[in-house]
Amino acid sequence: MNVTLRGQTRHYRTVAFDAQQNAVLLIEQRLLPHEFKIIPTRDFRQTALAIKDMVVRGAGAIGATAAYGLAQGARAFRGRDLKKFTDHIETVYQTLKAARPTAVDPVNAMNGVRATMRKGETVEEQQSLALAASEEFANEDARHCAEIGEHGARLIRNGMKVLTHCNAGWLAFVDVGSATAPMYAAQAQGKKFHVFCDETRPRSQGATLTAWELAQQKISHQIIADNAAGHLMQRGEIDLVIVGSDRTLGRTGEVANKIGTYTKAVLAARHKIPFYVAIPLSTIDWNLKSGFDIPIEERHESEVLGAWGAPQTNPSTLATRPSRNRYVRVANPTSGARNPGFDVTPAELITGIITPVGIFKPRELWAQRNKLGFEK
Amino acid sequence: MNVTLRGQTRHYRTVAFDAQQNAVLLIEQRLLPHEFKIIPTRDFRQTALAIKDMVVRGAGAIGATAAYGLAQGARAFRGRDLKKFTDHIETVYQTLKAARPTAVDPVNAMNGVRATMRKGETVEEQQSLALAASEEFANEDARHCAEIGEHGARLIRNGMKVLTHCNAGWLAFVDVGSATAPMYAAQAQGKKFHVFCDETRPRSQGATLTAWELAQQKISHQIIADNAAGHLMQRGEIDLVIVGSDRTLGRTGEVANKIGTYTKAVLAARHKIPFYVAIPLSTIDWNLKSGFDIPIEERHESEVLGAWGAPQTNPSTLATRPSRNRYVRVANPTSGARNPGFDVTPAELITGIITPVGIFKPRELWAQRNKLGFEK
Repeated sequence: MNVTLRGQTRHYRTVAFDAQQNAVLLIEQRLLPHEFKIIPTRDFRQTALAIKDMVVRGAGAIGATAAYGLAQGARAFRGRDLKKFTDHIETVYQTLKAARPTAVDPVNAMNGVRATMRKGETVEEQQSLALAASEEFANEDARHCAEIGEHGARLIRNGMKVLTHCNAGWLAFVDVGSATAPMYAAQAQGKKFHVFCDETRPRSQGATLTAWELAQQKISHQIIADNAAGHLMQRGEIDLVIVGSDRTLGRTGEVANKIGTYTKAVLAARHKIPFYVAIPLSTIDWNLKSGFDIPIEERHESEVLGAWGAPQTNPSTLATRPSRNRYVRVANPTSGARNPGFDVTPAELITGIITPVGIFKPRELWAQRNKLGFEK
Repeated sequence: MNVTLRGQTRHYRTVAFDAQQNAVLLIEQRLLPHEFKIIPTRDFRQTALAIKDMVVRGAGAIGATAAYGLAQGARAFRGRDLKKFTDHIETVYQTLKAARPTAVDPVNAMNGVRATMRKGETVEEQQSLALAASEEFANEDARHCAEIGEHGARLIRNGMKVLTHCNAGWLAFVDVGSATAPMYAAQAQGKKFHVFCDETRPRSQGATLTAWELAQQKISHQIIADNAAGHLMQRGEIDLVIVGSDRTLGRTGEVANKIGTYTKAVLAARHKIPFYVAIPLSTIDWNLKSGFDIPIEERHESEVLGAWGAPQTNPSTLATRPSRNRYVRVANPTSGARNPGFDVTPAELITGIITPVGIFKPRELWAQRNKLGFEK
């Protein structure tokens, strides 16, 4: 999407590839929202480290990063020995896989690239196919998000107030995003609307990343404390909710997403406000039979006990004097915390699932599984 | 309640009076949870400033501070001229009232002290009555909170997990607190239970003040992000909710309290978890006919856009190396925020109201108004 730096507006992807330098180009997301910087990773080990250290995060974005990392590793190989090349690729693959061991997207992305590569009969052909396949993976991710936008945009009408939670924006994908895609498409259609971004404690991805995205795209928005959405709904100030999903159960329509999503769905149902989940097809889990079987990651308590921010004293110079994030301890020093990272929203609370191939009721997913890319 | 400093445990009140020094003794709440300090205010102007600058906060606590401030001002008067004394008292009264213009507790507290004072026939008698009346106000506040505790403690059974929101603890009153009172009473009865403290963004009173209180009282507790309660309820990890109230409508049973309270009530109702509100009688508003008539204060957006914490890098030394709170900017620098400070919970979501004279259904308040101190 567009980013404006020193008055210059340019289009960026979250993840891109510089074939000449054989470098993966990443937005350094740990500096956002206070600083925007593209960093190149020069070899596959650096690329793995960038995934591990959260320079890049979000399902689609880390998938594309791993795909590019595999191509980068393949292209760095010197020689014609296909056996040695294949061993080298295995090292690259395992290194990138180990960077985020519980994530499924890097593995799926690399499996696709590797399957294409193997059609080549020489090292050179395989190197060339690796690059083409990783580019295609990234393009497809961006295209699917754009398609989510096309389907979802019709839900947004002029004058609406839309709530979103966490960051399911373009920074979590290669471009466009999932929950934000309908907003960007509606804006392109000339619609005027306002977005409330849940802060999304404890990591505050709404206040930092989603708000930054919307500001860059010049979409009217305000951040709210996670506590405030219920009150705004009660007073008629929210018309529509769109969130993303980390895992969507194809058999039941349940949605696992960032902690707090379930709460927003309960509130929306009480106030009869439509609640939509925007997903690329890759987040659909066709195996699990119940949301209660989804393991909920318990994250480190320091996230709840403190916050990351930029120290500064003069709010009026904020936009022009960015400074790095640092951690401060907010909570009582002798107290601990519970920190579940995700929650599960049942199908009954979800109005619809916005996918690249259309909008479905959550309990329709299974019946529509062929259309939705189900592979037995 | 008890506070342990350098291994020494002592009982403190949030607000007390040193008659010899004619000083109001306040816990400097802006330093909590990182530092515990009692500061004396030496004259009524300093006392007013302490209210204004939030050294002390919470309905009961600022009421008692104003009552003591009035006595402090009265006792500082030199001379026997009753007319001059009365003029002086008016100055003291107006100065303390202006410190927090929208709060009703300081005014009510001072009106009570002044009414008692006027029974004296000399300056000296009035000075003496002022001190006695302010001490009685503070004692009554503490006694009422203890009575809330006695009634509420029977709701807490061994092994329960109790959720609370914001700080309706002893730091908000003279002692004991409202929502925390049943916990302290249950602990005194030897019951074992666990408390989840909602962080309570944007000011984080749960993570800072309530968690500090519970840690001092050695009650098992953990802080959770405001987003996490829904998930914990869904997984059966919360048995009871107790919160405080800033204003309770005697005619309808609606409760205005810190933003996010309504959300917790909606979640509790969905999961059939009892939701109680603990209040001193002074928070009951017998006039308003609808919760929608309660003005909801829109607070400064900087609260939502940042956080207050203590910078430090070594979590293991946290308890022994306290440092002051400072503000960091968390959110995107070019985004704004909405910041409603309170919300209104309807009677249908409230299991009961815990008062000093017993526990009532919210819609019973009006019928029980004589018992609850209603004055036409």
